[in-house]
Amino acid sequence: MTLTERSELHRLPNRGSHQPETIHAVLDAGFLAHIGFQSNGQPFVVPTLYGREEERLYLHGSAASRMLNELDAGLPACVTVTLVDGLVLARSAFHHSMNYRSVMAFGSARKIVEPERKSHALRVISEHLMAGRWDDVRPPSEKELKATAVLEFSIEEASAKIRTGPPLDDEDDYDLPVWAGVLPVGLEARTPVPDARLHSQVAVPRYMSSWKK
Amino acid sequence: MTLTERSELHRLPNRGSHQPETIHAVLDAGFLAHIGFQSNGQPFVVPTLYGREEERLYLHGSAASRMLNELDAGLPACVTVTLVDGLVLARSAFHHSMNYRSVMAFGSARKIVEPERKSHALRVISEHLMAGRWDDVRPPSEKELKATAVLEFSIEEASAKIRTGPPLDDEDDYDLPVWAGVLPVGLEARTPVPDARLHSQVAVPRYMSSWKK
Repeated sequence: MTLTERSELHRLPNRGSHQPETIHAVLDAGFLAHIGFQSNGQPFVVPTLYGREEERLYLHGSAASRMLNELDAGLPACVTVTLVDGLVLARSAFHHSMNYRSVMAFGSARKIVEPERKSHALRVISEHLMAGRWDDVRPPSEKELKATAVLEFSIEEASAKIRTGPPLDDEDDYDLPVWAGVLPVGLEARTPVPDARLHSQVAVPRYMSSWKK
Repeated sequence: MTLTERSELHRLPNRGSHQPETIHAVLDAGFLAHIGFQSNGQPFVVPTLYGREEERLYLHGSAASRMLNELDAGLPACVTVTLVDGLVLARSAFHHSMNYRSVMAFGSARKIVEPERKSHALRVISEHLMAGRWDDVRPPSEKELKATAVLEFSIEEASAKIRTGPPLDDEDDYDLPVWAGVLPVGLEARTPVPDARLHSQVAVPRYMSSWKK
């Protein structure tokens, strides 16, 4: 990964990092990305699942997807992944903040054409979302693979921003009788809802009951 | 709100809506947006908190923020809010999906200059994130207001996409001995972590213990 002006950290550079390990850790902890690109002078930001392999992100969708076809033209794009870890409640409105981990990755995407590489990338996306699932399910047929567009987004450069820890109040405010601290938040899985047509003898798989992102 | 090509629903239009009530409900349920804009030929997607008032979203940040200053030039922008509700586990890899609610809003943003309107917009953002908090804390001083940029993003048009319900498998696949259904997921608050310098007599406020987004 390189470093040019677009990924330079301006605001609060102490929260930022260009370390590949830090960037990879955030990308691996999340599963929902927001991809931005401009088309006909209008920016679009589209939510999408993804998987990571080294400096590549895999994205997928319908072969008819407008977004994926536009991206395949080689448009510059930005993929952002954000994880919210906590609401930071200070004694003053001004010092309220959020604990989070976020990565902004710059690059461009191209469709993967070869069926074997497509299938591999789909497995990476699936395993990223829920490790263990892919080997349990019917793999894509040739027809299904054709109906699926898979894009490889090459990360040219990226930056991470991370905030952790308590609120930082003005010294004068510490005496105020206001609750201050962090309300940690995170994504939780709830009780699985079996499909109405599920065979009664099929148990909830272990990789699902231990799911955590 | 108007309707032009940029917010037209192409893929799976049955999941989409242009109804203001649907769009408002998604915007009000979320609190983290990803805002996209292009600068020097490069798209950027930046996570940000927001508040809503009618067809306006309020965003804020440091007065020195590169993003907010660029947006204030009137660049076309896209604000996307996505809530993940569940992982949809089908019997085939191909029919895996996600239950979600998402809004893509198009428009542009301008800085709010008048201190009273700025302060009002900050209250809207704060109350959107945690209703009840604003009246509990020290309000922004004149100096703090000056150090804060607040933008008003006018929604010119928007669309919502929502998927709910079980997986939809191919008829032939229903006999496969694979667990299928939905793993509901959602953001949860965990145990509050009081600041080390919190006065011992200050209790956790009710608006925080009942926090839900």
